[in-house]
Amino acid sequence: MNKQIATDVCQANIELQKQKLVTFSWGNVSGLDADEKIMYIKPSGVPYDELTPEMMVGVNMDGDVVYGKLKPSSDTPTHLELYRSFEVIGGVCHTHSPYATMWAQACKDLPCFGTTHADYFYGNVPVTPVMTSEEIKSDYELNTGKVIVQRFEKIDPLEMPAVLVANHAPFTWGLTPQKAVENAAVLEQCAFMASGTISIDSNQKAISQSLLDKHYLRKHGKSAYYGQS
Amino acid sequence: MNKQIATDVCQANIELQKQKLVTFSWGNVSGLDADEKIMYIKPSGVPYDELTPEMMVGVNMDGDVVYGKLKPSSDTPTHLELYRSFEVIGGVCHTHSPYATMWAQACKDLPCFGTTHADYFYGNVPVTPVMTSEEIKSDYELNTGKVIVQRFEKIDPLEMPAVLVANHAPFTWGLTPQKAVENAAVLEQCAFMASGTISIDSNQKAISQSLLDKHYLRKHGKSAYYGQS
Amino acid sequence: MNKQIATDVCQANIELQKQKLVTFSWGNVSGLDADEKIMYIKPSGVPYDELTPEMMVGVNMDGDVVYGKLKPSSDTPTHLELYRSFEVIGGVCHTHSPYATMWAQACKDLPCFGTTHADYFYGNVPVTPVMTSEEIKSDYELNTGKVIVQRFEKIDPLEMPAVLVANHAPFTWGLTPQKAVENAAVLEQCAFMASGTISIDSNQKAISQSLLDKHYLRKHGKSAYYGQS
Amino acid sequence: MNKQIATDVCQANIELQKQKLVTFSWGNVSGLDADEKIMYIKPSGVPYDELTPEMMVGVNMDGDVVYGKLKPSSDTPTHLELYRSFEVIGGVCHTHSPYATMWAQACKDLPCFGTTHADYFYGNVPVTPVMTSEEIKSDYELNTGKVIVQRFEKIDPLEMPAVLVANHAPFTWGLTPQKAVENAAVLEQCAFMASGTISIDSNQKAISQSLLDKHYLRKHGKSAYYGQS
Repeated sequence: MNKQIATDVCQANIELQKQKLVTFSWGNVSGLDADEKIMYIKPSGVPYDELTPEMMVGVNMDGDVVYGKLKPSSDTPTHLELYRSFEVIGGVCHTHSPYATMWAQACKDLPCFGTTHADYFYGNVPVTPVMTSEEIKSDYELNTGKVIVQRFEKIDPLEMPAVLVANHAPFTWGLTPQKAVENAAVLEQCAFMASGTISIDSNQKAISQSLLDKHYLRKHGKSAYYGQS
Repeated sequence: MNKQIATDVCQANIELQKQKLVTFSWGNVSGLDADEKIMYIKPSGVPYDELTPEMMVGVNMDGDVVYGKLKPSSDTPTHLELYRSFEVIGGVCHTHSPYATMWAQACKDLPCFGTTHADYFYGNVPVTPVMTSEEIKSDYELNTGKVIVQRFEKIDPLEMPAVLVANHAPFTWGLTPQKAVENAAVLEQCAFMASGTISIDSNQKAISQSLLDKHYLRKHGKSAYYGQS
Repeated sequence: MNKQIATDVCQANIELQKQKLVTFSWGNVSGLDADEKIMYIKPSGVPYDELTPEMMVGVNMDGDVVYGKLKPSSDTPTHLELYRSFEVIGGVCHTHSPYATMWAQACKDLPCFGTTHADYFYGNVPVTPVMTSEEIKSDYELNTGKVIVQRFEKIDPLEMPAVLVANHAPFTWGLTPQKAVENAAVLEQCAFMASGTISIDSNQKAISQSLLDKHYLRKHGKSAYYGQS
Repeated sequence: MNKQIATDVCQANIELQKQKLVTFSWGNVSGLDADEKIMYIKPSGVPYDELTPEMMVGVNMDGDVVYGKLKPSSDTPTHLELYRSFEVIGGVCHTHSPYATMWAQACKDLPCFGTTHADYFYGNVPVTPVMTSEEIKSDYELNTGKVIVQRFEKIDPLEMPAVLVANHAPFTWGLTPQKAVENAAVLEQCAFMASGTISIDSNQKAISQSLLDKHYLRKHGKSAYYGQS
């Protein structure tokens, strides 16, 4: 067991509750040991208050439990599909945070209405297509990962580290489990402000490409100039 | 007096306040001693902070006080009607939690817009018909129970452990008082997210039967695979 | 100075902040010494944290300061007009609590959409007419009281212990300062739930007279049966 | 380094978090040393919890760092343009507080719907025009200041100490950094209540000039009579 990554994953799961992103046990975070190809994830249905690093469950890329005594989160096959397809990422987060979930339930892309959103997500946050009855009936959690990956066919997952699964809720990711949780918190705030924006003007459009480029690239990539160097 | 059940009922009432489901004394929980056919319930109008197990009121199935010195909640006849008709249940909870109450006041079924809802409630949460003037004028609290039971003529109360009483507020139930309170908290969160969903898309429809089956049955019944075994 | 009433008024003002009904110093409570015809009220612009009973300001029915060293709330003439006209009341409360203020700003009566409202207010909470330029330019605070009183020409102020001043915010009252604050808290919750109700169904109507009678009279008057006796 | 102003600016930045006006590091406050023509501002990207007066960055009116070891906020050129153009002000505050940001994202002036707003802002809070691609691509932060100043061509910045930058978020100001933060908190509450007001009545109009004059002048200028003298 990779103690460092298990500890990071444990802390990131506890952070979900501190950031008020979860009710009951509705959320989970995982982290990848890229060298060993092992994913560590929250055990299923355990309260956040009780989590310790030793309780994290290590599974290989085929989903077999290789470390830990508990059952992994039921969303494990979704997380694995994301790591297999988005090779650069090191952490994945799933919550039912209310405002992001409202947009997922409404089956709408989350529009980029302002610079808060543009500072973190390079464009509208995509919603997946509604899953077919066949996709639901067998290998549901794996297929949830597959519809995400299909939706990202032409999208760079590091430029857009979030998705809304239609009728369900968001997934976010990043280079680390901590960054995946931060993206979940930002997504929730952007979803909250987008809901309020359309309640003021239901015809409001996303911001211009110029403003999106300015804010996203001010914080990301070679020409970034935000924060201390 | 059954001390264990009185203690459970007392704790479940206190939990209402911890979960932020009540304002002032707007809510009550009861529990059933199935062997003795005695229901224990919160006394009327007493603040949650002051409740002790000894203050819980025991009434028989006809509503006669058999244990305790205080008057039982004025909603006692509603609770009793639910226990008489839904024989499997062991706890009932009534709150005026704001989002569930908004749907009750709007006299609308709460649509199942997503998997959060489907994990707990097997379909749209039903609203009762508006009560007639006759039903209101005499035996009002008993008749509140009766309109709930009539609304559930073709619904299994364990698959749908919640109802919205039109122009009033929700009731929830479960195998225990604690489970009834948990269902009240989940109902409130689902009502909150449903309100936000229709504010994004007023034509949004409930999820498919396939997705409802998948999520509800993932957590309930013989084939459940969520949580630790 | 009536120490008991000054203490009650001080506590009731502090309660405004505990109940989260005020931002900055946007709210004030007064109480009446009916025997001496002296009203005690919060001093103007003083933070709630710093209030002591000695700081309360006593004014006679003509508005002359007879006790205390500080200036009384700028809303003093409004409070006095309510005591002069609604002879039974012993406390008055004014806040800018957000949801009640939204309805006041929208210049709409707050509809009685459910039993939570009916338990405290016997019908829709009335909004005053918009004040004329003449009423605003001279004796503004006194005229605010007068438009409230005119609006209540055919309304019993004990059955309806609240009003929305158009373009402004609510006033509430009761037999004591504490009861006036409780009514302000209930009004805020009812306004919150009414806003949510019309967002679900913009055509929703107020509840029936039968249901209003049942709930209001269950808690008030000779036939009340709620709470301990 | 002016220790007093650096301390005031540090405290005002910490106050942003206490007032729940910021998420992560989305906000900054500056203060002016008018004698020395030096502006002190939050360092870029540093968490509020870690701020000390010594970390504040002093820049001259041309934007050169003259005190401190850290990089100033990336919004520094916007702040400087406001001090150069609004000569009376001594503090500037920028947040992404959610309700004010919703109005900025909707590109709408914030209407003066009631007396809470009129007590602080003398009319509708203006939104800037959407910035052109040219204004965004070079000297973006400076041009953000310039579009604010242009929007205020006929507006007195002390009578209207707030602006909504279209597609972005609010800026507020005042005679001191503390007053700039207070105005940010009031703006947020007014934006919240305005959103609720139009959800009740989408055709609601701003209040009359008479009521605006009465409330604004009750608190500001020679004839003010609110608060202790």
